[in-house]
Amino acid sequence: MTAEAPKSPPFADADALVVALGTRARAAAKRLAAATTGAKAAALRAAARQLRAQAPAILDANARDMAAGAAGGLGPAMLDRLRLDATRLGAIADAVEAVAALPDPVGAEIDRTERPNGLVLSRVRVPLGVVGIIYESRPNVTADAAALGLMAGNAVILRGGSEAAHSNRAIHAALAAGLSESGLPEDAVQLVPTQDRAAVGALLRAQGLIDIIIPRGGKGLVARVQDEARVPVLAHLDGINHLYIDAAADPAQAVELAVNAKMRRTGICGATETILIDRAYPAPLAIVDALVRAGCEVRGDARIAALSPHIARAEAGDWDCEYLDAIVSIATVDGLDGALAHIDAHSSHHTDAIVTEDAATAERFLSAVDSAIVMHNASTQFADGGEFGLGAEIGIATGRLHARGPVALEGLTTYKWLVRGSGQTRP
Amino acid sequence: MTAEAPKSPPFADADALVVALGTRARAAAKRLAAATTGAKAAALRAAARQLRAQAPAILDANARDMAAGAAGGLGPAMLDRLRLDATRLGAIADAVEAVAALPDPVGAEIDRTERPNGLVLSRVRVPLGVVGIIYESRPNVTADAAALGLMAGNAVILRGGSEAAHSNRAIHAALAAGLSESGLPEDAVQLVPTQDRAAVGALLRAQGLIDIIIPRGGKGLVARVQDEARVPVLAHLDGINHLYIDAAADPAQAVELAVNAKMRRTGICGATETILIDRAYPAPLAIVDALVRAGCEVRGDARIAALSPHIARAEAGDWDCEYLDAIVSIATVDGLDGALAHIDAHSSHHTDAIVTEDAATAERFLSAVDSAIVMHNASTQFADGGEFGLGAEIGIATGRLHARGPVALEGLTTYKWLVRGSGQTRP
Repeated sequence: MTAEAPKSPPFADADALVVALGTRARAAAKRLAAATTGAKAAALRAAARQLRAQAPAILDANARDMAAGAAGGLGPAMLDRLRLDATRLGAIADAVEAVAALPDPVGAEIDRTERPNGLVLSRVRVPLGVVGIIYESRPNVTADAAALGLMAGNAVILRGGSEAAHSNRAIHAALAAGLSESGLPEDAVQLVPTQDRAAVGALLRAQGLIDIIIPRGGKGLVARVQDEARVPVLAHLDGINHLYIDAAADPAQAVELAVNAKMRRTGICGATETILIDRAYPAPLAIVDALVRAGCEVRGDARIAALSPHIARAEAGDWDCEYLDAIVSIATVDGLDGALAHIDAHSSHHTDAIVTEDAATAERFLSAVDSAIVMHNASTQFADGGEFGLGAEIGIATGRLHARGPVALEGLTTYKWLVRGSGQTRP
Repeated sequence: MTAEAPKSPPFADADALVVALGTRARAAAKRLAAATTGAKAAALRAAARQLRAQAPAILDANARDMAAGAAGGLGPAMLDRLRLDATRLGAIADAVEAVAALPDPVGAEIDRTERPNGLVLSRVRVPLGVVGIIYESRPNVTADAAALGLMAGNAVILRGGSEAAHSNRAIHAALAAGLSESGLPEDAVQLVPTQDRAAVGALLRAQGLIDIIIPRGGKGLVARVQDEARVPVLAHLDGINHLYIDAAADPAQAVELAVNAKMRRTGICGATETILIDRAYPAPLAIVDALVRAGCEVRGDARIAALSPHIARAEAGDWDCEYLDAIVSIATVDGLDGALAHIDAHSSHHTDAIVTEDAATAERFLSAVDSAIVMHNASTQFADGGEFGLGAEIGIATGRLHARGPVALEGLTTYKWLVRGSGQTRP
């Protein structure tokens, strides 16, 4: 820790710190809820300019995190997530500007009805209020989450991982400078000023001060948040995603989709982890071969393993494993019903897809699979807010309440009912 | 407890009981999610027929609850909530049939977009899954909640109050007979077979088995549920509702709305509890007099209390009190900004209303008040799912997540994303 970031903040304890942060956030949220689209967009553009202007300080802070991470034994994947350079920082600033250009959800009318007694009812979107985001090593989340939260009219409290503490403080300083320039309250985006883990517990208990907590990170973080939180949580769990190759799949398309769904990027939550192949599908070997050629380790059931010496036998645990790596499990299933039964038993309800030329089978799959995203003849790697045209996302919600799938600006709002009358009394 | 309802169910403990209930509910929910609108409506009509056919048994069971309640010292208001007669039971059956006639939300398309790469995305409504409802003395909730839950494609687990245990079992038996006739799974609607309070705790901890808990009852119940629940909760808190009489209000309308908003029924959550009168409003005495004539106790601030000997002085606690009775607090405020400040400080964010002929003032109020329902020139007593045209409601949500205000069929659903492609891979 450095001088500008005291390890012991001037608060009696973590709860007192969070009360202070939450009270300031609540006051800022009131002002943000009334802010115009233009004011919010201008603030984000100013924040993007500050990110570019303060690049030297941000990259310097990041270098300190990288050095500490390397000395502390962070693995190469973690170090890569942590690392910023001029290109990556430019992309972060671009992303903030892109959010500024998105349609403002606040004030949008969801529906409107007129009752027989003349009352006119409408639902309009309003901000959620105060959003807490607890995340791990990626410093870009500091800017992304702040931008999305603010554009939806919310005050944001950010709690990043200790390995990115210097980077996060530097990015936050740039954002705060942008807000300050623009006239929106600086407290619209606050960074928890300590890495003390007790602060996370205090955030999770801050009912009334924080309206929703969004955890972004690995299983351990999400599990802790879900277990401890008294504040509602919008969680992103595993992506144990399936690609089902139906008997009626186009064989060339099946190969292309299997390789893309698994191998385009293996570490993202939309990557396919298990391929299900209909026993009646004529060309399973071509799929396996293409995956092996693409560098994928294949773990198959007995029938698949018998196809090629390159295939290991899957063990029971493979069907419930989110590899996030160049490994795939492949099971043989008996038609659509077999695929649905396997998905029902093993899917994490994130994204599941079918490949088939049979429209009726496709529609049955789309209807029967109870996952946040269900696809037909498309790569599961499309599970992404940007690819869905939402502009950006704060995460992919795998729960059932409030928002499901990619969560963007709309998911960071709620609504209120407006009732316009002319003196109606209720009989 | 009687022979047909053993005090010790055949389970090791409350958790084992809830696992059994939840597992059966989950299986039923899978079948319900695929049930057609016609099948669900037919099941509800059969349930309504059974409620009518089994009226003697239900009224007999209710008489036992009433006798036990009277002997146990339940107050007249509680006994009235508990009491069934032929008319009330007929209304319960009618309400079940009315739900059967509502538009089915399941399968409805929320939106649809086509991406430049040809992917077609749509969001369609799907059931939430398993809904747990924990409620107190009103036995009609057993039928109402079951009907709404089922029509939205959910399995329902009901846990009623011990004072209505016989009535609830008899109503549940009729519903189960209707479901059984219709071919939908009987486990679609289960009643927790014990009044052991540990069962409530087990329901609140049943993550993975229950998707949402809806408490319906007094503050003590809702507070316990919110405090203990690990399952998401859709809660209905206080209705500390305000009616603001602006300087530009029509005086005759102001009197009518004030009397209706407060006095039409004083015990419902949409009743006004505090009236705010603009210092510039010319005729506050007429409002006070009309309320007093209607039988209302008025507690005013110094200025209001000076208007009439019938007015007591309000104490500080009055501004935060949900009377649910023929009592109103009245404060003088300085125009719209004063009203907004008072509402911000004291509203429970349920329903707040303005009376004014000034359209710009009305729109400022509608925009600035952050409550689930905000009204202009209408009685707060309209805060009701039926009055909103939703057909029925499972409650009025005062939280910010998932659903807000009157929650009906749509609020008992979530959505999934469908992605229809033609072989697209992600670059």
